[in-house]
Amino acid sequence: MKKLILASIIALFSIGATAQELNNFSFGRGPQVVSPEVLGDSVVFRLKAEYATQVSVAPSWLGWTANVPMQRGKDYVWEVKLPCPEPEIYTYNFFVDGVSVNDPQNYLVQRDGVRYLNMVLIPGERTENYKNATKRGTVRQMWYDSESLGINRRMTVYTPYGYEKNTKQKYPVLYLLHGGGGDEEAWTSMGRAAQILDNLIEKGQAVPMIVVMPNGNPGQQAAKPMDIEEKTIAYNDPAFANAYVNSLVKEIIPFIEKNFRAIPKSSARAIAGLSMGGGHTTSATILYPGTFDYICPMSCGIRESAELDAQLQGIKKAGYKLYWIGCGVDDFAMPGTKVLDEALKRNGMEHTLYTSGGGHEWKNWRLYLNTFGKLLFK
Amino acid sequence: MKKLILASIIALFSIGATAQELNNFSFGRGPQVVSPEVLGDSVVFRLKAEYATQVSVAPSWLGWTANVPMQRGKDYVWEVKLPCPEPEIYTYNFFVDGVSVNDPQNYLVQRDGVRYLNMVLIPGERTENYKNATKRGTVRQMWYDSESLGINRRMTVYTPYGYEKNTKQKYPVLYLLHGGGGDEEAWTSMGRAAQILDNLIEKGQAVPMIVVMPNGNPGQQAAKPMDIEEKTIAYNDPAFANAYVNSLVKEIIPFIEKNFRAIPKSSARAIAGLSMGGGHTTSATILYPGTFDYICPMSCGIRESAELDAQLQGIKKAGYKLYWIGCGVDDFAMPGTKVLDEALKRNGMEHTLYTSGGGHEWKNWRLYLNTFGKLLFK
Repeated sequence: MKKLILASIIALFSIGATAQELNNFSFGRGPQVVSPEVLGDSVVFRLKAEYATQVSVAPSWLGWTANVPMQRGKDYVWEVKLPCPEPEIYTYNFFVDGVSVNDPQNYLVQRDGVRYLNMVLIPGERTENYKNATKRGTVRQMWYDSESLGINRRMTVYTPYGYEKNTKQKYPVLYLLHGGGGDEEAWTSMGRAAQILDNLIEKGQAVPMIVVMPNGNPGQQAAKPMDIEEKTIAYNDPAFANAYVNSLVKEIIPFIEKNFRAIPKSSARAIAGLSMGGGHTTSATILYPGTFDYICPMSCGIRESAELDAQLQGIKKAGYKLYWIGCGVDDFAMPGTKVLDEALKRNGMEHTLYTSGGGHEWKNWRLYLNTFGKLLFK
Repeated sequence: MKKLILASIIALFSIGATAQELNNFSFGRGPQVVSPEVLGDSVVFRLKAEYATQVSVAPSWLGWTANVPMQRGKDYVWEVKLPCPEPEIYTYNFFVDGVSVNDPQNYLVQRDGVRYLNMVLIPGERTENYKNATKRGTVRQMWYDSESLGINRRMTVYTPYGYEKNTKQKYPVLYLLHGGGGDEEAWTSMGRAAQILDNLIEKGQAVPMIVVMPNGNPGQQAAKPMDIEEKTIAYNDPAFANAYVNSLVKEIIPFIEKNFRAIPKSSARAIAGLSMGGGHTTSATILYPGTFDYICPMSCGIRESAELDAQLQGIKKAGYKLYWIGCGVDDFAMPGTKVLDEALKRNGMEHTLYTSGGGHEWKNWRLYLNTFGKLLFK
């Protein structure tokens, strides 16, 4: 055995292995442990933990308090087999003697704010567009100067397959906004936005478009892992919400329309966002009517107010082509969503209220992008 | 206490918290545990682990077999204080009852192949350029069609600050190659390439340049977390090494020079790589003399062979401006590096052999980029 290990280490070195790879190797993570294993009707989680006394798994589809005990089997491999949930992407983590642990066998990891979780994709019709298409667009992280916020800020910009080749073509733009705790990478990491757009466009179900995913936290230059000091902006400052929305319309849109082959017209601009980003969507369209012809707030309602009818009339008067609202039936944002739905009705504004099972979660926001994405710019 | 938790949950919801954030919250990760804490002369690691019987930390600066026990203190917080190593970026992970665990308090994470490790930056002169500069370039993941390899492949391309604005300026290009186990994200994740270039350029120490970081595994379309099926290419197939190098010179260079404002001349092309990528560097320059005027293999030697002198004479005859070799004094690649150094000497080829402490590790490759980066295109 020792000889085999030595031979393998030499083999690793000979193909240029790094010290870290040897580290992996030395701690005995062999290929024998497979986790997660997605079978037809079940999912098996496994973790090798020789000295642990309690190992459990917390799969997101069981809700955020679930914690399923695993049983210790041969070679100290703990295991549990669970019934397969509906096709979707789920997250999970293990708990080893009470401490949260990622699955060392699974390199599919997503970041939610400051937390890293493993992903498992249960394949089915619903998840077809979450996998990589054949023709893939470019995803870039770039920086714009926000004079209004006084900082240089990072954003993610997707351009569709062919953007580099078709140098005479101009494209419409979707401004796609994240929620609280998210950042400029939320939609490409948890939201699978690049995969969804790639697939929709490849299948001819969506118009080729640019997708701009800015950072919606006005004090933040970039996602936390970029480790750049943040500017303190009080959340209860009335300027908070509009500071970002103003920067979006007055700074980000001109930046995009200058640096990309974007069609600079309201008919070629869509805005969509989830939760806090849904609030940014309704605010931006109220404050700047006539800027976006396609309006898609998700998992986010609106508060009834004395000004609401006048604000919506402003949007109606300026004109729009699509007002599409998405919300999960168990979402705590459903009451506010109904307020918005009712307000649009009483103002005679055509719109769609799309509901789906589940609550305030990414499985719904991926589904919504995959759904309203087909309706934009048509 | 229960009331406070409830109030906080409501507060989280009201700013648009996701279920995952509540998950974080529910498992009691309060802000009270700080880890890692970098003090003047020590680093403290802490982990809350109520039910664990053994907790340790494996900091990379102690070598890849080190595993330092931590002591349980108040409130089940395990802790160890270690003397501060020299300024650099290091990685670490915990072991909780024998299982590898990332630090839940530290959102600085890097991916090495299929493994995620926490990072800790010990500040000093050496690490000044590893932090974010003020003026930052754009980093993009894009795809090129490799006809020779029969697959569509992902690469990372950095363009310097100002690239979007200075639409009349053309730029030189550094082709920066990763090692075994790496992929197209290795240099931007572990190598801090964007930060290093941003800083060097901002300080006027390096010429503004484009940096192209392709995937050097010819069977791979993209890094493993992209989850795209790989094409099987036998590592002992003699076509293996050159398949990628051929694609680099015949396909990637034309792709870059078509899609970016790159200067299409050998005097504006540099090639550098570590370990396996150092092998690609020496191969590419031997197979395609006169393509790159700047040649920087790192942590990678060459084998003595009957053809070596003729091959190097080919490079000499075609002309070059810089041949810069970097290697750690404890690197297992040092003997091969000396073979290359000697061969260049006996062929009368001007070159630099730059050595530094340590072995086959990222702290050296960051240092080398930060060093030869100042010498390119001058």
